[in-house]
Amino acid sequence: MRHIISPTDLTISELDELLNLAEDIIKDPKKYSKVCQGKKLATLFYEPSTRTRLSFEAAMLNLGGSILGFSSADSSSVAKGESVADTIRVISSYADICAIRHPKEGAPLVAALHSSIPVINAGDGGHNHPTQTFTDLLTIKNLKGRFENLTVGFCGDLKFGRTVHSLIGALSRYKNVKFILISPEELKVPTYIKEEILDVNNIPYEEVRSLEKAIPNLDILYMTRVQKERFFNEEDYIRLKDTYILNTRKMSLAKKDMLVLHPLPRVNEIAVEVDDDPRAVYFKQAEFGVYARMALIITLLGYKEGRPLC
Amino acid sequence: MRHIISPTDLTISELDELLNLAEDIIKDPKKYSKVCQGKKLATLFYEPSTRTRLSFEAAMLNLGGSILGFSSADSSSVAKGESVADTIRVISSYADICAIRHPKEGAPLVAALHSSIPVINAGDGGHNHPTQTFTDLLTIKNLKGRFENLTVGFCGDLKFGRTVHSLIGALSRYKNVKFILISPEELKVPTYIKEEILDVNNIPYEEVRSLEKAIPNLDILYMTRVQKERFFNEEDYIRLKDTYILNTRKMSLAKKDMLVLHPLPRVNEIAVEVDDDPRAVYFKQAEFGVYARMALIITLLGYKEGRPLC
Amino acid sequence: MRHIISPTDLTISELDELLNLAEDIIKDPKKYSKVCQGKKLATLFYEPSTRTRLSFEAAMLNLGGSILGFSSADSSSVAKGESVADTIRVISSYADICAIRHPKEGAPLVAALHSSIPVINAGDGGHNHPTQTFTDLLTIKNLKGRFENLTVGFCGDLKFGRTVHSLIGALSRYKNVKFILISPEELKVPTYIKEEILDVNNIPYEEVRSLEKAIPNLDILYMTRVQKERFFNEEDYIRLKDTYILNTRKMSLAKKDMLVLHPLPRVNEIAVEVDDDPRAVYFKQAEFGVYARMALIITLLGYKEGRPLC
Repeated sequence: MRHIISPTDLTISELDELLNLAEDIIKDPKKYSKVCQGKKLATLFYEPSTRTRLSFEAAMLNLGGSILGFSSADSSSVAKGESVADTIRVISSYADICAIRHPKEGAPLVAALHSSIPVINAGDGGHNHPTQTFTDLLTIKNLKGRFENLTVGFCGDLKFGRTVHSLIGALSRYKNVKFILISPEELKVPTYIKEEILDVNNIPYEEVRSLEKAIPNLDILYMTRVQKERFFNEEDYIRLKDTYILNTRKMSLAKKDMLVLHPLPRVNEIAVEVDDDPRAVYFKQAEFGVYARMALIITLLGYKEGRPLC
Repeated sequence: MRHIISPTDLTISELDELLNLAEDIIKDPKKYSKVCQGKKLATLFYEPSTRTRLSFEAAMLNLGGSILGFSSADSSSVAKGESVADTIRVISSYADICAIRHPKEGAPLVAALHSSIPVINAGDGGHNHPTQTFTDLLTIKNLKGRFENLTVGFCGDLKFGRTVHSLIGALSRYKNVKFILISPEELKVPTYIKEEILDVNNIPYEEVRSLEKAIPNLDILYMTRVQKERFFNEEDYIRLKDTYILNTRKMSLAKKDMLVLHPLPRVNEIAVEVDDDPRAVYFKQAEFGVYARMALIITLLGYKEGRPLC
Repeated sequence: MRHIISPTDLTISELDELLNLAEDIIKDPKKYSKVCQGKKLATLFYEPSTRTRLSFEAAMLNLGGSILGFSSADSSSVAKGESVADTIRVISSYADICAIRHPKEGAPLVAALHSSIPVINAGDGGHNHPTQTFTDLLTIKNLKGRFENLTVGFCGDLKFGRTVHSLIGALSRYKNVKFILISPEELKVPTYIKEEILDVNNIPYEEVRSLEKAIPNLDILYMTRVQKERFFNEEDYIRLKDTYILNTRKMSLAKKDMLVLHPLPRVNEIAVEVDDDPRAVYFKQAEFGVYARMALIITLLGYKEGRPLC
């Protein structure tokens, strides 16, 4: 049995298999519409995350399976002081696979250690969020056709944005990838990412302040939210925030085939006017999220081409 | 693709089709029990409304479809500042149709403008609640057999009661309908309803204070809740409240085939002793609500007699 | 039509049938995987209880049925002042069977009186919780093979623990059962249990203070949580709490085939080190809970061997 706690729990070849499977699902969803008949997914969301929860549930329903679970800790047994280890042992009797989201880093790992069903980390604090990373990768693979030879810009809050850290880690495993890290001084990528991932793998990268100057060179632009409360003072926030807002003017400076990704929800870091630009693929990305989760669910449940789950 | 934001989004002939379809479902529910197999309904409830949400969910399950969604804004991404427009674009990837309830008037319309799946307004503030109106109409059609030649009394809070306003609007499209509007002075039907609906369509109506005096003439009595907080002072409330409580004594003054409807939940405006009267059809009305929603869901998903959805 | 409000709503022979059915489901779950196709279970949880709710939902999904409902009163119509009687009448139109949990004792009984679908009490205040009792009985029957000739210890909070009271009541109907009631003075079994159940049925029992001394004689040890707030003062709590914690040292004094049960969630009354002991069957018990509920649901829906539900 296999769990997915971190994006790097899969080797590159396993990840390739997963993404290929997801693309096969995209091509022929009917073929997979009954693969999980009789199977149940438990969504254990100790903190609310509607988008992620519904994406998992849509994925399982698309596979012909059923769903049960909870959407916040209030309505769970946490209030009674039960440990995650105990909860997962009980849930193991109720479902065939589970997705867990928890405010505490490491909780999904603890769950996995005590579970007798596959556990998928659906986000744990500032830690990992592997299905978002698989979603991002599937979006790039499907729309760009490759991971190699790409210049990828990350823009906004690169300090606290875990989706950024995960995607940097995942893309660093491919050849000839270059990163442009676009952020205010206060929100630069943490040193350990640079030392332990970028430098170790000899990945070329630049740290810059201006989205406008960086955008012409990018094949992918990964936008993130810049939260006001991350700044040390109001002045800095007001001075800097517009710099990191993507609008049609900045889009006019970009390559014709650049893709704009965003993990969503967005607040105002991408102007609504950009939505109609065909390069803006963040809503398509949300759709890919369902396919990525479908592929992951059936992979963990032991699906092999041509053999039904039993 | 079609959305239902207001009850008048359907022409009379479309409404007739919808109600006929609902009556066919009532006659032979088995025939429809797999029509929505593989389809998903998202229930997006930004404010709780158990009855309405469960009615939609029961409807979709009766059709063989699946359900996903949220039951309050707390457990949704609203807290992160996402717009309804963005949410619906994401949900469009997760489901085939959605029902949205929102405390802000106009939110379902905004959703519809950005959605790539059919949107059903499940209530927006004091505005519209079209599926309640379809439910009311189905109840009248099925139990009374006609919309024409009816004297319909509305009793209670006619000022804020949106179900009253919607049903007045819907019934005003039929011939020879007469309204008796029974309420305290403070809770009379708003002027715009009288001017823009009743007067424009030359609908005869009376505004009266006494349920007791009005009841003998009614074919339909539509009861609503009189909320204490709507009154200007405690004295008025105490003086008036009993006037608008339906009990067996008042029922004894009514026609033998008068129907009592109520959108529910009721608090004390209908005495429990009335429940056993065969003319009290408000619980049956809740049942019709499921059939009305079944008919609406499959109509919006493109159902045509004899052709399965694909 | 039949409701289950109290564990003793079933005669011994009906209970035997239920447990036999549950054991048949354990042996061949596939046989039952479509018995409830097209049927809907409503879970009406006026107070959160994730474990119980998910156990019911897993049970219904295992039977091929569907689920709908709410997980806390906040998201229900209770806020609008609707009575349980009215709610259940509406729910009767939405589902085929329902499980109701309510903080007020007697609420499920009120629901049953007004329901046109079978009602299962899923816990009402300090009152009954019949499906927990059926779960406990199924665990004992399946793992011990008998109810007769057993010495059963109950340990911890025997005063407020409703699962204890219910199980004492249920086991008192069998022959040659003896109880050892292990608790601090403050948390002894209430007098009415002793007078109305134990004495009336001539059941031998002892009330003791020491788990350590009692454990060697037990065939079953039923552990419960000792809540700090039940004690009159902090001192007593600190002095007594360790006495009622089960650990490997105490387990070493027990019979080789003693079973440890616990209704869960546990906090610290069973040390985690005990979990690996094969006699610790509380997680298995949670699994049996699903089978017990499956058996109960189909029994109430009229299942007879060889005849599909219609």
